[in-house]
Amino acid sequence: MFESALVEHKLGKEEYELAEPELRTRLIEAQLALLERRPFAMIVLVSGMDGAGKTEVMHRLSEWLDPRHLQTVAYGDRDEAERARPAMWRYWRDLPARGEIAVMFGSWYSEPLRDRLLGQTGRNRFERQLAAINRFEEMLSDEGIVLLKFLLVLSAAEQKRRLKALAKRTGGASRVFEEWTDVAHRDQAGAVVGEAVRRTSSNHAPWTVLPCDDPEYRDLSLGRAVLACLQSHLEAVAVVRPLAVPVAIPNVDRRNVLDTLDLALALDKAESRKRLERAQFNLLEQSQRKAFRDRALVVVFEGHDAAGKGGAIRRVVVALDPRQYRIYPIAAPNEEEKVHPYLWRFWRNVPPRGRIAIFDRSWYGRVLVERVEGFASPTEWGRAYSEINDFEEELAEGGIILVKLWLAIGKDEQLRRFEERADTGYKQFKITDEDWRNREKWDLYHDAIGDMIDRTSTTMSPWTLVEAQDKRWARVKVVETLVDRLTSEL
Amino acid sequence: MFESALVEHKLGKEEYELAEPELRTRLIEAQLALLERRPFAMIVLVSGMDGAGKTEVMHRLSEWLDPRHLQTVAYGDRDEAERARPAMWRYWRDLPARGEIAVMFGSWYSEPLRDRLLGQTGRNRFERQLAAINRFEEMLSDEGIVLLKFLLVLSAAEQKRRLKALAKRTGGASRVFEEWTDVAHRDQAGAVVGEAVRRTSSNHAPWTVLPCDDPEYRDLSLGRAVLACLQSHLEAVAVVRPLAVPVAIPNVDRRNVLDTLDLALALDKAESRKRLERAQFNLLEQSQRKAFRDRALVVVFEGHDAAGKGGAIRRVVVALDPRQYRIYPIAAPNEEEKVHPYLWRFWRNVPPRGRIAIFDRSWYGRVLVERVEGFASPTEWGRAYSEINDFEEELAEGGIILVKLWLAIGKDEQLRRFEERADTGYKQFKITDEDWRNREKWDLYHDAIGDMIDRTSTTMSPWTLVEAQDKRWARVKVVETLVDRLTSEL
Repeated sequence: MFESALVEHKLGKEEYELAEPELRTRLIEAQLALLERRPFAMIVLVSGMDGAGKTEVMHRLSEWLDPRHLQTVAYGDRDEAERARPAMWRYWRDLPARGEIAVMFGSWYSEPLRDRLLGQTGRNRFERQLAAINRFEEMLSDEGIVLLKFLLVLSAAEQKRRLKALAKRTGGASRVFEEWTDVAHRDQAGAVVGEAVRRTSSNHAPWTVLPCDDPEYRDLSLGRAVLACLQSHLEAVAVVRPLAVPVAIPNVDRRNVLDTLDLALALDKAESRKRLERAQFNLLEQSQRKAFRDRALVVVFEGHDAAGKGGAIRRVVVALDPRQYRIYPIAAPNEEEKVHPYLWRFWRNVPPRGRIAIFDRSWYGRVLVERVEGFASPTEWGRAYSEINDFEEELAEGGIILVKLWLAIGKDEQLRRFEERADTGYKQFKITDEDWRNREKWDLYHDAIGDMIDRTSTTMSPWTLVEAQDKRWARVKVVETLVDRLTSEL
Repeated sequence: MFESALVEHKLGKEEYELAEPELRTRLIEAQLALLERRPFAMIVLVSGMDGAGKTEVMHRLSEWLDPRHLQTVAYGDRDEAERARPAMWRYWRDLPARGEIAVMFGSWYSEPLRDRLLGQTGRNRFERQLAAINRFEEMLSDEGIVLLKFLLVLSAAEQKRRLKALAKRTGGASRVFEEWTDVAHRDQAGAVVGEAVRRTSSNHAPWTVLPCDDPEYRDLSLGRAVLACLQSHLEAVAVVRPLAVPVAIPNVDRRNVLDTLDLALALDKAESRKRLERAQFNLLEQSQRKAFRDRALVVVFEGHDAAGKGGAIRRVVVALDPRQYRIYPIAAPNEEEKVHPYLWRFWRNVPPRGRIAIFDRSWYGRVLVERVEGFASPTEWGRAYSEINDFEEELAEGGIILVKLWLAIGKDEQLRRFEERADTGYKQFKITDEDWRNREKWDLYHDAIGDMIDRTSTTMSPWTLVEAQDKRWARVKVVETLVDRLTSEL
């Protein structure tokens, strides 16, 4: 990977000063074009050897680009808020909006590389992590974030010299281990980093190896690479990106897992009250357990319109300490959310350890309403299943318990409830023209719900289908499901 | 994954017979459209539970489609020719040409799934294998092969019934283990298969889970899915697929690893003869070792025009048993090769154990001449580096020793040799107008060679750069390099 970067590259000060003004002008022009149309966002990832000039590179970019639209973020050890959440949370939080550029110092590569360099992960686990990174970066590209990755390298002699000078300045204090601190293990580290770089170099997220012995050469190379990347993408965005189109083939008989539900299931008032109270008591108890402080709970409520999500959510939260939970009602994305990848707004609300997040509708909108109404293209919702599975896997690996509930009613019952809502003054706000329009697409929704359950019900985060024709049955099942999951997980 | 497929699906014979003629007509129409323009090839992969009807499904497709352009292949245990080569060799061999359809029974999923089900691979290794499969299938898609994957499933009751009936017919003989033979381990197997299906479902290579309790329902679903897939791709091919465009940024000073070579290195006649003879003797000895019978050798010769590849190859092969080696001179692809993925013709010539294949130019043409001359689009050569690395990794995992040699000369020396060739009657055939044209693009080739070495020199299959200004030096280094690699590998 590094052969040509380790060749001697030297640029005279004169030549640099001759080239720099032109480069800066072009960079600013490109950034303005990016800001004007906001077709994509850009992440410049700065990685590599200690002492090679990562900080200098960040400063140089801040100097060259309009800093109002340039965000520089440096990741060190995780702070308290970050430790309380899944590993990828902080990177999602900082994803730039379309039109903006982010320079990242340290990244999702740091931990896998460090663990591999220290011998704490084997080859298979390392390759698996790299595969997850590839999926993440492909998602970024699909969602309009251009990623440019730099690996800063020094020749052995120069690295030795700089680390010595550094040790002198810091009084010989040992440096924080990052990617390659140690000259002695240079080749070993190079092999591991080289494998990672090769495996994660793709057309949509290429690595550029940056020779750093000569600062002028480094900066000019960096600037030209950023410029070339910006320009080529500014030209390319005009082009449509069809990719492979997923084929949604409804079952020949249109029957799916929803059709197996026994919607006649019901509870009488007395029994339902008894069971609900017991379940609520148990839920409070589980949520107060010491073991829960190291975990978190995310509950997803999805269901047919008028299936009773709101009522069910109320039966859950009355049992909880109000300081512990938050409810997120999910509507169409706002302006800020629209200029970020679609999972961004859900990542933002991932709860820290010990807390509970309740989503009243969720990221599944992508494969339900957005699929049926055409708000997402077939390519977009087609890839969303894997993206959602990856997201939920990250949550699980971060210790989060995820409960996904589908509240199901029949088509007739929905009509009855719509009419009741329309007729009852204080319920009229609950029924809109949109509800009636959705109802006309019942069969398309039926297909989409079936696909969703089939493709996102995993061992780690299965869907629970709740028969909601009888509200009492539904509410009891919802709270009892939560209690069961917490009991078995904690 | 299987929830909706395990719902009861039943189709009356009558309804089936009503729908079938129409379906067949449309399938033949779609196949004719495919044959007419030959925009892509299609693989229908048939996988799933024993007893669910994999054979019947293959027969049904042969009945419905024009069998002259339908190839059905079933993979069982590997035969002798297959065992002698890397695991992926037989699948590459059978890739359909554009316009053709292949139905595959058993596939690259079989071995990873079996090993995982038998507990012989851990989760990390399994995930790593799935990631490799994803890369392979993405390559197929990029190279114009549409992949449609079916997983045939039975309800528990029906599976039990069929296996019982089968046992009766075969006198109770135990069946070969495929994916799910065993009713007792059904759920366990389902979890593993489900994970694989989820992880490898993508827009470009989706899985369709096919409920098989009712044969009529199964066949109609199958036919409709094949039809929908054919139709959607026949419509889509008109559209350009730009994807992310790689940015080739030449080094600011255009210096790369080639510039570190000391082209003055030379040997005098006497020493070179002595060393060459000794090296050739050692090469023969190594190639005759018992240990080599379990391995194979692939030698790639690349280099500047007129660098002396032919002469070097002759110095290698004179030392070898002619029954053991074959030389493959690589020119522009022929008609048959053009309708297959570009690595196909190299996979065909992967040598079996104990043999040697010598490539006079190779798959690296993709990132050299095809890149520089624009025969491959930036997207195509941009992704070729990873594809080549994956290919060579498969070779290495199959026990093949790969030696890659770059023969380097300077621009002046090349001119001298060109002129000499033009002036010498028996050498004139060696020099063409194309050589002179390539020479004009010396700098572009220089960049491309540097990128190639940087991005494909791996620990397992590094490039060896051979200073070829002095032919004697070059020939000795080539043969000695082979001896060294064989000695250290065997």
